[in-house]
Amino acid sequence: MIVYGKNVAKDLLKKNKKIEKIYLQEGFKDKEIISLIENRKIKVIFKQKKEIDDLVNGVHQGIILDVSDFQYKNINSIFENNDNFIVILDHLEDPHNLGAIIRTCEAAGVKSIVMPRDRQVQINATVMKTSVGTLDNMNIILVPNLVNTIKKLKENGFWIVGTSLKNSIDYREIDYSGKIALIIGNEGVGMSQLVSRNCDFLAKIPMYGETNSLNASVAAGIMIYEVIRNRK
Amino acid sequence: MIVYGKNVAKDLLKKNKKIEKIYLQEGFKDKEIISLIENRKIKVIFKQKKEIDDLVNGVHQGIILDVSDFQYKNINSIFENNDNFIVILDHLEDPHNLGAIIRTCEAAGVKSIVMPRDRQVQINATVMKTSVGTLDNMNIILVPNLVNTIKKLKENGFWIVGTSLKNSIDYREIDYSGKIALIIGNEGVGMSQLVSRNCDFLAKIPMYGETNSLNASVAAGIMIYEVIRNRK
Repeated sequence: MIVYGKNVAKDLLKKNKKIEKIYLQEGFKDKEIISLIENRKIKVIFKQKKEIDDLVNGVHQGIILDVSDFQYKNINSIFENNDNFIVILDHLEDPHNLGAIIRTCEAAGVKSIVMPRDRQVQINATVMKTSVGTLDNMNIILVPNLVNTIKKLKENGFWIVGTSLKNSIDYREIDYSGKIALIIGNEGVGMSQLVSRNCDFLAKIPMYGETNSLNASVAAGIMIYEVIRNRK
Repeated sequence: MIVYGKNVAKDLLKKNKKIEKIYLQEGFKDKEIISLIENRKIKVIFKQKKEIDDLVNGVHQGIILDVSDFQYKNINSIFENNDNFIVILDHLEDPHNLGAIIRTCEAAGVKSIVMPRDRQVQINATVMKTSVGTLDNMNIILVPNLVNTIKKLKENGFWIVGTSLKNSIDYREIDYSGKIALIIGNEGVGMSQLVSRNCDFLAKIPMYGETNSLNASVAAGIMIYEVIRNRK
């Protein structure tokens, strides 16, 4: 996996993460990063700005790192860790949203995020950048089928809370004191019908404008902190 | 101002917004958009994909619009409209955050957002895209000096609530029943010292992870809905 930017580089270097190689722009000057690289045996390849620009589509700040692929976890890790509040993503598309949700989960003490293997944005360089170093503290679980996963969670005592504008109740009226799996739907179409039908509760954040929709990571933040409020 | 993408184009065309000209990629096929354009007298310029790519740095989907610059409002609009809950941005940098905050404000019924004229991301194409058509319902107010604005708001009966990790109290412990101006700080450094010193309350969203920071638009969403909770 290719990641980039000074903050990401510092974070990975300080945490002693496995880095295959590093591409530096000719004339790269950040002393802290250069010293962090020198302390380790990592292959460094210098390139002209133009060549670096061609490698990534984003603000690289002169440094690109080739790191091992992200290690996803298995669904059983939820039960082994005795998680009692997890977040499920129903086919999110936007890496900024995924990154921001990972960051919110970490801040709120949520340890595990479940997401589908297909038609869902995966952990990539933008996600890593947006989640600002929180990814390491999280179990990200890839599953082939969300509905089967939801059924398994139910068998293990989880209450499934979905978010939906239709047939839903005010998010503040739900009792979140048990084991909770909170589902955040796709940015455009929300939760899929089959997932929605398998929810125990459907929650709605009240809206008073004309547009009636929140950014997915903002809605996730409001919901996650509402669950927290009921528990801590 | 240059904006782009099919959703933005449809929104502007349907709302009969003033559009100076439209650049279409050769072979552009969206029938709905083409018919919307045909209903109005707008100059259309066809260009090769390569030329369109060079015009913007983002996913244009074959359509770029040149529209009039965004019309900011004056601080007095707050008092004329009898706003009793407004949001102030203390030098935000990321257009995705600004767009998501505008969208959250619109959904929550907040009508006015104040932001500084300098060192603050302004309304641009990315903001327009992220705020998905909510911009029209909002008063965005540019001010030369945040501290002077805060003093003026105080004279007009507003309580100033800042967000800060230091010297702050749990965000759920504040009484938001009066006229509230909520300040969201910069993504990296938070609120500036002078702004912080002029707050009546400093609120903290409790965090339980290692990282201790939320995405600015997520934090704004949680805070805005907390104020709403106290009022509606």
